[in-house]
Amino acid sequence: MSNKQDNIKRTEISQLGEFGLIEHLTTEFQMKNKSTLRGVGDDAAVINYGDKDTVVSTDLLLEGVHFDLMYTPLKHLGYKAVTVNLSDIYAMNADPKQITVSIGVSNRMSVEALSEFYAGIYIACERYGVDLVGGDTTTSLKGFTISVTAIGEGERGKITQRQTAKEGDIVCVTGDLGAAFLGLQILEREKDVFLASPQAQPDLGGQDYVLQRFLKPEARKDIVDMFRQADISVNAMIDVSDGLSSELFHLCKQSELGVQIREADLPISDEATELALKFGMDPMVCALNGGEDYELLFTLDESSYNKLPVGADVRAIGKMLNQASGKNIESRSGKVHELLAQGWSHLDD
Amino acid sequence: MSNKQDNIKRTEISQLGEFGLIEHLTTEFQMKNKSTLRGVGDDAAVINYGDKDTVVSTDLLLEGVHFDLMYTPLKHLGYKAVTVNLSDIYAMNADPKQITVSIGVSNRMSVEALSEFYAGIYIACERYGVDLVGGDTTTSLKGFTISVTAIGEGERGKITQRQTAKEGDIVCVTGDLGAAFLGLQILEREKDVFLASPQAQPDLGGQDYVLQRFLKPEARKDIVDMFRQADISVNAMIDVSDGLSSELFHLCKQSELGVQIREADLPISDEATELALKFGMDPMVCALNGGEDYELLFTLDESSYNKLPVGADVRAIGKMLNQASGKNIESRSGKVHELLAQGWSHLDD
Repeated sequence: MSNKQDNIKRTEISQLGEFGLIEHLTTEFQMKNKSTLRGVGDDAAVINYGDKDTVVSTDLLLEGVHFDLMYTPLKHLGYKAVTVNLSDIYAMNADPKQITVSIGVSNRMSVEALSEFYAGIYIACERYGVDLVGGDTTTSLKGFTISVTAIGEGERGKITQRQTAKEGDIVCVTGDLGAAFLGLQILEREKDVFLASPQAQPDLGGQDYVLQRFLKPEARKDIVDMFRQADISVNAMIDVSDGLSSELFHLCKQSELGVQIREADLPISDEATELALKFGMDPMVCALNGGEDYELLFTLDESSYNKLPVGADVRAIGKMLNQASGKNIESRSGKVHELLAQGWSHLDD
Repeated sequence: MSNKQDNIKRTEISQLGEFGLIEHLTTEFQMKNKSTLRGVGDDAAVINYGDKDTVVSTDLLLEGVHFDLMYTPLKHLGYKAVTVNLSDIYAMNADPKQITVSIGVSNRMSVEALSEFYAGIYIACERYGVDLVGGDTTTSLKGFTISVTAIGEGERGKITQRQTAKEGDIVCVTGDLGAAFLGLQILEREKDVFLASPQAQPDLGGQDYVLQRFLKPEARKDIVDMFRQADISVNAMIDVSDGLSSELFHLCKQSELGVQIREADLPISDEATELALKFGMDPMVCALNGGEDYELLFTLDESSYNKLPVGADVRAIGKMLNQASGKNIESRSGKVHELLAQGWSHLDD
């Protein structure tokens, strides 16, 4: 439950200085995209997408709020810091091409620890074909601060926003939901055990799927690629970062529509279901409100829906309705309940 | 020395929630640039610059490291968080058009305090014609965290980088140097006085210039506009954020050249000179190493230099030499000293 690399070799950041540190951390990053005209090393990066639109998204991640270094390997953290931002770009039906990464670091962190973090960033950049083009490196008094900005290109007229869902659209979600939330519950439980008795061995066996969903989420590049290959137009799209319910509320509010989803169609993995029950939680509540799934939630008309290839990792979960219909979920027993931004409980079913 | 607005009305951030807070803070921001296709409110912002290049720069500002809320009014802080980023875009000879602003806020901060901060951002956006197009808002356990990304457009072939200075180029700097550093010294001194006896009245009289240079710096849009009007091409440019010496080192390293500047030509305001002497400091050391000036340092050939309009706020301070010549400063007495990244002292003169 601790960062082992600190035990092996420890180089103080002050030995390199700010500019030396940046050089050290970014030396292996090669520019891959022809749109990247100038990367790290100037006042600003320079990009050209020709006749495409530029899409920009940014996230701020703070130690103790978004991540706990006690159970988050730094390499995973670097990877995740990138993928959660790329997820926002894919949710616009655009292709991320560049990122900037800014970090605030206390002297508790060694150069070796930061190198681990950048190794994760590097792997994510390689996997998604993205260039690291800039950032800022600074001291922090306490805690590790990460700010990532992702920049991508989108084809004009094909960028999918939140406010363009249509009444009657089929509502779809990719992958499965709730597992990342359950992965976090396990890590928090093991942290408590560790704090109570540091000699105890962590019990993480058989939980690989939910742990990976939380610690090393992927962005759904494959889905956006599939839309293009199958010539599918979606009307609205958003990524699931705060939980399905919350994202449905965003879609409905911005599109001035209502929605009805079906409990029975919510995609929940067997591992997540089993674990939720073990924790005494309702798997559906985990799926609706867990968050950090980084799946794509989108709406499209029936003819586009019918173009989805057989076996596509997509599930239809409901329909967009007019605004007066409200936001509802139909339970397995056929009852219709109002969906709450913070989820819905089985209490009154 | 404290944020008075907190005494008047205090709305807790939790009363609005994350999305309510963003709406509340950004409601007055109108998009001004036709390149801004989509601003706040989606997974990402959408921008199109036509056939121009996209220029991106980012800064991370942490409480206790980059600013002290004891003497930094939040409105000034918002303004400065924007202008220091725009400065990087102008240093590329480009025009900032959009910014994203992410904040991490502890519950110590009220909605009213944050509104002050955004009021400063708003004023800067209006003054520089920039759109706020996105960001992230999150809780922090401790301290106020700010991450700003500025995005701008530059004409291909006219973007000025650091590695393209030429041997024989005249080295110029805009405005004057060292004043912001001295403004900070005054604020730190008054903070110490206040902490020792909270009843004491701060002694800030007559220091308006240096205080403003530190608390509310401007970005040199006027200089970049002037280059275009006078059809002046500069070979390399950088903004002075870490101090003149440090920026000269960057130019020399990346352009593989040397430099010689003249002490007598360093632009230092009378206020800064007087104050430096009062503090027992060498004004030249303040100018070389103070930092936070946000002036532009650039190099150009003689024919371009001769096109500078009479009265331009620009001073020639030296010349780019070959790499073997090293990096030197000629003192007023005519002696040549090696320039150090951390400055140069009069000790051996």
